[in-house]
Amino acid sequence: MLGKLIGVGVGPGDPGLVTLKAYEAIRTADVICAPKARPEKTSMALEAVKPLLKRMEGFPEVLELVFPMVKDKLMLERAWRKNAETIIAELKKGKTVVFITLGDPMFYSTFIYVYRSIVEAYPELNVEVVPGVTSMTACAAASKMPIAEADDAVAVLPASLDSAKVYEIARHVDTLIFIKGVKNLSVLTETLLKGGFTADSPIVMVKKHGGLAEEIKAGTLKDLRSWRVEDYFSTIIVKKRAKNAE
Amino acid sequence: MLGKLIGVGVGPGDPGLVTLKAYEAIRTADVICAPKARPEKTSMALEAVKPLLKRMEGFPEVLELVFPMVKDKLMLERAWRKNAETIIAELKKGKTVVFITLGDPMFYSTFIYVYRSIVEAYPELNVEVVPGVTSMTACAAASKMPIAEADDAVAVLPASLDSAKVYEIARHVDTLIFIKGVKNLSVLTETLLKGGFTADSPIVMVKKHGGLAEEIKAGTLKDLRSWRVEDYFSTIIVKKRAKNAE
Repeated sequence: MLGKLIGVGVGPGDPGLVTLKAYEAIRTADVICAPKARPEKTSMALEAVKPLLKRMEGFPEVLELVFPMVKDKLMLERAWRKNAETIIAELKKGKTVVFITLGDPMFYSTFIYVYRSIVEAYPELNVEVVPGVTSMTACAAASKMPIAEADDAVAVLPASLDSAKVYEIARHVDTLIFIKGVKNLSVLTETLLKGGFTADSPIVMVKKHGGLAEEIKAGTLKDLRSWRVEDYFSTIIVKKRAKNAE
Repeated sequence: MLGKLIGVGVGPGDPGLVTLKAYEAIRTADVICAPKARPEKTSMALEAVKPLLKRMEGFPEVLELVFPMVKDKLMLERAWRKNAETIIAELKKGKTVVFITLGDPMFYSTFIYVYRSIVEAYPELNVEVVPGVTSMTACAAASKMPIAEADDAVAVLPASLDSAKVYEIARHVDTLIFIKGVKNLSVLTETLLKGGFTADSPIVMVKKHGGLAEEIKAGTLKDLRSWRVEDYFSTIIVKKRAKNAE
């Protein structure tokens, strides 16, 4: 009899932004699986819940699993398969395995690959997903920049998206959010200006929200070129028009 | 001396999806303000936290504020001003006012208007925003449909957005999320097919997630025409390609 797999979003890194349901899943887990990018690093999802684990009696077993951040498809697939096998071995013991991820498990998360690999092999597996607070709304809260209101259209784009696509999407939405780092700020500024944003479009950039190195910059699009925060955990929110100016 | 205003996202409706920080803000509030659409209705944000309030000693004072769901700008502004005045009166007594909203306070929420009106009058006010789980990630979790992975681009569109815009955005993104109800499913299907989605594009529709009337439909884009859930609290997630088919 297989155990149960629970994908749990632990939010953007602040232990206070863990939900009651996520807390309860972690507290009652047999095994917690925590993804990390390199063997020698600590898991950021695990860091986010460590202060909560300390409060608990009867600490669950913790398995840190390495998911390398590489583009090589073969390397990635080998890592997913290996980690899926580790999890399956625990599920086969009848254990409840909680896989924690930063943010939300269904929004650009490692859990998606794990879930897909495991469910392909065991379609009957009991799986639950506990949603979490995403970094984008946490950044909006930290900077007090509303993401959207009324009939606004929003797009969420990875920093790696090519300029031609960014331009086409920019033309038709009210808010753009860039996640997973921000690069080539001059090129990005030009693309947004061509796509209907203006020098006065309000913009914020938040670095490593939830962690200790938090940094918030707020201004208008004309400032973006001079900003120097280029980091994988940076998020940008930019709005076509300042609403209170209407 | 003015008190403090805290905008708190309580998540999609399930009390378990309230964060620890939101719970603590509610527990220690002097006054909780809860928005609702009509005087005779109950506040959905309040419903989401009622099971938690029952556990608390020394219940905070609850003020339900009416924010009519109308398009008339004058009516809306009158309601925002009146509610802002009610909140300011509490802040002037030095109280900590927690304004609760479903989902996240910076993502299509009533809190944005309240915040803007109050801060315009009192720029020195101490304001904190506690992000929450949005309905879109909660719907993804309930339906186990991943929203995005790797370099996917995502757009979040209100159901009221015109077809020409939906078409243009559809052409350039991998995932579309329709919030605030879904209407004219035949027209929407046509628009998506023209915009690069296919009959086999995976799609889910979730109705009133978190509440009791939850209903989940899953299929492919060709099914959408025949679905009959047209409700303000419906969410659709549609993906251009099924990833496991790659």
